[in-house]
Amino acid sequence: MGMTRIDSNVSIYPMPVVLVGAVVGGRANLLAVGWISRVNHQPPMLSMSLSKRHYTNDGIREHKEFSVNVPGVGLLEKTDYCGLVSGREVDKSKLFDFFYGRLRNAPLIRECPLCMACTLVEAVSLPSNDLFIGEIVEAYADEGCLTAGSPDISKMQPFTLTMPDNTYWRIGEKAGNAWDAGRKLMQ
Amino acid sequence: MGMTRIDSNVSIYPMPVVLVGAVVGGRANLLAVGWISRVNHQPPMLSMSLSKRHYTNDGIREHKEFSVNVPGVGLLEKTDYCGLVSGREVDKSKLFDFFYGRLRNAPLIRECPLCMACTLVEAVSLPSNDLFIGEIVEAYADEGCLTAGSPDISKMQPFTLTMPDNTYWRIGEKAGNAWDAGRKLMQ
Repeated sequence: MGMTRIDSNVSIYPMPVVLVGAVVGGRANLLAVGWISRVNHQPPMLSMSLSKRHYTNDGIREHKEFSVNVPGVGLLEKTDYCGLVSGREVDKSKLFDFFYGRLRNAPLIRECPLCMACTLVEAVSLPSNDLFIGEIVEAYADEGCLTAGSPDISKMQPFTLTMPDNTYWRIGEKAGNAWDAGRKLMQ
Repeated sequence: MGMTRIDSNVSIYPMPVVLVGAVVGGRANLLAVGWISRVNHQPPMLSMSLSKRHYTNDGIREHKEFSVNVPGVGLLEKTDYCGLVSGREVDKSKLFDFFYGRLRNAPLIRECPLCMACTLVEAVSLPSNDLFIGEIVEAYADEGCLTAGSPDISKMQPFTLTMPDNTYWRIGEKAGNAWDAGRKLMQ
């Protein structure tokens, strides 16, 4: 079939799903975020974009610290809940077993297979969102989700998100080896 | 098992995989990119982070336009190839059937189920990467990959990437409904 023009408000397919943590009003708060990616190799940095109206943004600006936690599919309901209710109205500080590394304002989630503690490097103000760029200063992983010392996606069982159909998806079968599958096209 | 501290140079799980297009040295060039996400709701914007050494960056800076193309799993080898070889040494302008919308320096890939043409809004210089923020001004989709006018991931069949194991993965089974599955936790 042919290409057709569609509404330019399209997603990236698929989006990762993480829980962003910050301390707001003296307690841990969480937000479900799909607009996140790594942005710098060395030192390791990531960016995440949060709608300006979110409560979590205040805590990140105040303490210049936040956490990024990758939930497994077993935490899907709790993760979705964190995206449904605002910390302005609901106390989410009892939802998980939090722990802290060196950063005292980056609440890490013990139930998540992978947790990152970040310091704020830069905040870029966009028309409707705040793009926060952070340095990953510490990472913690569930020992049972590691293979050769690195997080193993088949053990972590993260999930992904698509919009506008608002659907979560599991990770599927292995499709190929990166930086390798294309070698047969090299001359 | 318990949480253990690991190297802070960790990935987001999983990463989407796209082909970024630009016109460099008078011809279309492509780069495989996993560090990409939406960053602004209205107008629609995305960001992508490219290592400063990439050839594509020159074209984006020169023309202030680029494309983001989401490949299906059938294009895995060609996509991987675009991440293995540099446009400085290899001509990638014949690898796909390119077409252009309103932006004459944003080469769109007819074989990809979803293509976005972007104008450069801002470039943030990070220590080892350029973070390009662009506005999605046009989007095109394969008519066969739409459901109710929107891209359908089950028809597009995009794939994802994990590092440091350098593996591509298919999208798996539906895991739940977003902004819905957590309702049962609301009081």
